[in-house]
Amino acid sequence: MIHSQSQETSVVVVGSAAYDSIATPIGNKTDLLGGSAIYFSISSSYFTHVGIVAVVGKDFLKKHITLLQTHGINTEGLEIKTGKSFRWSGVYSTEDINTRTTLETNLNVFSDFSPILNPEYRNSPFLFLANIDPDLQSNVLSQMKKRPKMVALDTMNYWISSKNQSLKRILEKIDVVLMDEGEIRDLSKEANLTKAAQHVMNLGPSTVVIKRGEHGVLLFHGKSIFSAPSLPIDQVIDPTGAGDSFAGGFIGYLAATKDLGFDGLKRATVLGSVMGSFAVESFGPDKISTITHVDIEKRFRILSDISYFEPLNEKESIPISLS
Amino acid sequence: MIHSQSQETSVVVVGSAAYDSIATPIGNKTDLLGGSAIYFSISSSYFTHVGIVAVVGKDFLKKHITLLQTHGINTEGLEIKTGKSFRWSGVYSTEDINTRTTLETNLNVFSDFSPILNPEYRNSPFLFLANIDPDLQSNVLSQMKKRPKMVALDTMNYWISSKNQSLKRILEKIDVVLMDEGEIRDLSKEANLTKAAQHVMNLGPSTVVIKRGEHGVLLFHGKSIFSAPSLPIDQVIDPTGAGDSFAGGFIGYLAATKDLGFDGLKRATVLGSVMGSFAVESFGPDKISTITHVDIEKRFRILSDISYFEPLNEKESIPISLS
Repeated sequence: MIHSQSQETSVVVVGSAAYDSIATPIGNKTDLLGGSAIYFSISSSYFTHVGIVAVVGKDFLKKHITLLQTHGINTEGLEIKTGKSFRWSGVYSTEDINTRTTLETNLNVFSDFSPILNPEYRNSPFLFLANIDPDLQSNVLSQMKKRPKMVALDTMNYWISSKNQSLKRILEKIDVVLMDEGEIRDLSKEANLTKAAQHVMNLGPSTVVIKRGEHGVLLFHGKSIFSAPSLPIDQVIDPTGAGDSFAGGFIGYLAATKDLGFDGLKRATVLGSVMGSFAVESFGPDKISTITHVDIEKRFRILSDISYFEPLNEKESIPISLS
Repeated sequence: MIHSQSQETSVVVVGSAAYDSIATPIGNKTDLLGGSAIYFSISSSYFTHVGIVAVVGKDFLKKHITLLQTHGINTEGLEIKTGKSFRWSGVYSTEDINTRTTLETNLNVFSDFSPILNPEYRNSPFLFLANIDPDLQSNVLSQMKKRPKMVALDTMNYWISSKNQSLKRILEKIDVVLMDEGEIRDLSKEANLTKAAQHVMNLGPSTVVIKRGEHGVLLFHGKSIFSAPSLPIDQVIDPTGAGDSFAGGFIGYLAATKDLGFDGLKRATVLGSVMGSFAVESFGPDKISTITHVDIEKRFRILSDISYFEPLNEKESIPISLS
């Protein structure tokens, strides 16, 4: 019985599966496995049972489906349609590797993506709505049999400007929103991140996660704030998928522990940072799909170490000038 | 005896005293008290006995000397020369308040600043060489009767490019260098901050502090790294002096505690961040010159709170997927 329960899908992700062609200061690669749902599901598979909902074309390689399955990812929701898979190509700036320019986007079979959840997925306690059209995000949420324990959402500037009202409708109904600094400033029209987070929480979500790349992550939950450091990385090879890998670690940890209080959210944020740090260390998901739990734990401990300083105990005071 | 010792100068700062005219997105102010030595000495005065070495003109207001003295700052080294005080005017970007453009610089009496330390200052155990010509920094250090316990240095892009060799000569002789992200990338020609810090440590200093404004501070000390969060601030009014106020808290704390190990350096970094956070909350040094030790302690505790997460204990492991 316990064994059978343990096989149930705890997290469902709805997003993209793609082939990416990427140029970074380190080099160029074509036809890399990519897409938000791919990175998210691989990352969260280290912690929990995840089901992927995405669409690919007939060109999608068998070995990539096998890769997902060897990570224990449920691929029933990965629809294979006649046509080509979503293809994206982009170039990362040599001056600031966090800045990228899209060269080409071919939506292909993704252009009429219309996700249908199977009955098991509709009971999933955790749902991650990756960066897709907010109307699709709403549609997916409405398919759930009962309100999941936690619904998290990612979005991007394109939807913030082109589908602002739809985005606000889905924001009303979810728990956690994950954004980068630029996106939350765009959405809230607030430069100050604390005010921006407050603004977004007023739209619905109780938790706001602001991803700042090499500058770490800010977590806002009601009146509480947590600032997570980033892991010092010797060399960022390819930032693609870092945000979705973060989300995979974040949601995966929460689904595994069911600790949805502030302490749990803080650890989930740190684990998200750990998973993001693996994602940037190779082109495509090569690195993040070949790590071990020992690797993950080691980086979690490093983040504890580099952010710890001795707090003041209750009676202690800051040394005072003798004047 | 103890009382008389306590009055000795523990920290000497050599830098600028100025009148600033500043435009920020919040408003404009003219003839604000400013300069690196001013911000540094006010900030460090909350922790220790500081002596200021700087030059001003006859126009320097009596009330500003009184302000320093009421903070217990030793002003014997504040030379008053015929002529006008150093004046700087600049404008901070409305899009990114951390970006500033200099409108006008009138060095006035500062143009032939030639600091001479009095006998007491030459025995000071802590020396802060604020952002001035690296040849002057070397000259000041050579005036010390014995090598201070700690010599810290700030610099800027201008000296990195125009006096690179002089800067490298003084870097060989000091312990701590404080820089912002752009400056250390400039000096090291390394985009990666961990590598940049390593590069600079190879030039001499055992400790490198990288100030990242709203993104917090990185401390490198040998092989050890510490990542300090920044305090969430509702509104940055004027960033001028934040870096020097950081340095004042950092060095002031170390001088007060004499705890120069990594734990002490980490707390000093946090306290530096606290002092920087006060500096940006008013035009000029109004706010940082009117705080209490209770205010400082409160913010230190906030930084402990927002950066703390439960570490893994030795036996604990990250929750593992049940697959």
